[in-house]
Amino acid sequence: MVFTVDMPVRWVDTDALRVVHYSNYFRYVEAAEEELYRSLGFTFKEVNEEYKIAIPRVEAFCKYNAPARFGDIVTVTLRLGEKTKKTMRYDFEIQRKSDGGLLCSGYLKIIGLDLVTWKATTLPADLMAKIVSALE
Amino acid sequence: MVFTVDMPVRWVDTDALRVVHYSNYFRYVEAAEEELYRSLGFTFKEVNEEYKIAIPRVEAFCKYNAPARFGDIVTVTLRLGEKTKKTMRYDFEIQRKSDGGLLCSGYLKIIGLDLVTWKATTLPADLMAKIVSALE
Amino acid sequence: MVFTVDMPVRWVDTDALRVVHYSNYFRYVEAAEEELYRSLGFTFKEVNEEYKIAIPRVEAFCKYNAPARFGDIVTVTLRLGEKTKKTMRYDFEIQRKSDGGLLCSGYLKIIGLDLVTWKATTLPADLMAKIVSALE
Amino acid sequence: MVFTVDMPVRWVDTDALRVVHYSNYFRYVEAAEEELYRSLGFTFKEVNEEYKIAIPRVEAFCKYNAPARFGDIVTVTLRLGEKTKKTMRYDFEIQRKSDGGLLCSGYLKIIGLDLVTWKATTLPADLMAKIVSALE
Repeated sequence: MVFTVDMPVRWVDTDALRVVHYSNYFRYVEAAEEELYRSLGFTFKEVNEEYKIAIPRVEAFCKYNAPARFGDIVTVTLRLGEKTKKTMRYDFEIQRKSDGGLLCSGYLKIIGLDLVTWKATTLPADLMAKIVSALE
Repeated sequence: MVFTVDMPVRWVDTDALRVVHYSNYFRYVEAAEEELYRSLGFTFKEVNEEYKIAIPRVEAFCKYNAPARFGDIVTVTLRLGEKTKKTMRYDFEIQRKSDGGLLCSGYLKIIGLDLVTWKATTLPADLMAKIVSALE
Repeated sequence: MVFTVDMPVRWVDTDALRVVHYSNYFRYVEAAEEELYRSLGFTFKEVNEEYKIAIPRVEAFCKYNAPARFGDIVTVTLRLGEKTKKTMRYDFEIQRKSDGGLLCSGYLKIIGLDLVTWKATTLPADLMAKIVSALE
Repeated sequence: MVFTVDMPVRWVDTDALRVVHYSNYFRYVEAAEEELYRSLGFTFKEVNEEYKIAIPRVEAFCKYNAPARFGDIVTVTLRLGEKTKKTMRYDFEIQRKSDGGLLCSGYLKIIGLDLVTWKATTLPADLMAKIVSALE
């Protein structure tokens, strides 16, 4: 299973080449991740507060195929990638909604971070179970 | 009449005080303006291309009452303010959706800008008529 | 006295009209404010930690005269505006460095915010004295 | 040879975890790239206008080791990576200036893009020669 969310390109996301700035695709992916979490009934903030862990990125990769422009709706798709006790990978694709054209694809690798020791830690099992059940 | 749109606070919108950075409320207002235009059947880009005008801001004002935080949904309300041949004002309010608490309020004043001469110009009558009919 | 700092327009600051997005001028002003503080020997973070106060904006205003473009260096000038026990205003101007052309001007009004009660509080006297001595 | 530039972490770059948002490191790298170009006597805009090409990113990768925080100065180092007729890779490292601690490292792969046909094209030889002479 995959998680999919549509979002409009905002004017502020574009640059003087009249296309979306490459760094903003990572922000679209994060917005999709936030919506995935919301659909599962929790937020990053609750993860921070209830589990005393954060889930920062340890790797980010994106391959760009075609630019998004103002006026476009983009479709972000999240898939479950490789998973260890402490890390998890979201594989993503961003498409132009109007014709399904692939704009870019890549992944984000997240890690459990203990907010007391500020060291890598195991991702909470129930949290992971929810994400896995949504994406697998 | 007013135009109202809800949007989630994104993680990237927050700062190290754990609240939304003050500059981002202006971006929420612009996102609402984009949705207003979309609801009326056009985009900033089409305004640029069809009328050969842009509609940049000449004034921006915001008074901040309370902070938005990650996890909040904010409701942006746009009202029609003062209007001249060349300028138009959007008065806005941003509220916390959960309890209606006022987060901030202010206005954006826009102007018609001729993209050939790069000088102030009359706002296109049909475009203004659409916006006015939606907001008045 | 005034505080002045030059900074380059970044590509990511521009939008599809090939000019700096209007929200980013507020970020230039904040960057200047950060450099003012650095020149006085402290940071926002230290204000948070040592005084247990934050200094959020309660009002932001900007009047736009001309656009900055990629390749421009902008000069941000900060002046001391109206001051009360709990609030202080920075009046700002942003100019194009190459010819001194005025791009925009406005102000930011800041307030002391007690980080324990999350209520308005007096701005620390020694902190204000430093800022006043730099700007008055 | 490498190109190195220092820049302060801005308040707006941080997020509610009180660290720099992961997407912003890509913006630091781009700022360094802009300074490299400036040091060689040209800008992205001139590349667009004089050569009728753009140099968008086709791949972006970053591995995160430690977070930057508000108050930090970061040092961005650019090195020349793999090079073909149409593409070039910048390998980067971002370090905390105070102690040299590695914050993140990665690369950006850029491509020549013909702004008339909007297709991949050879990177201008004189432009590449300048960059290569600065980084090799």
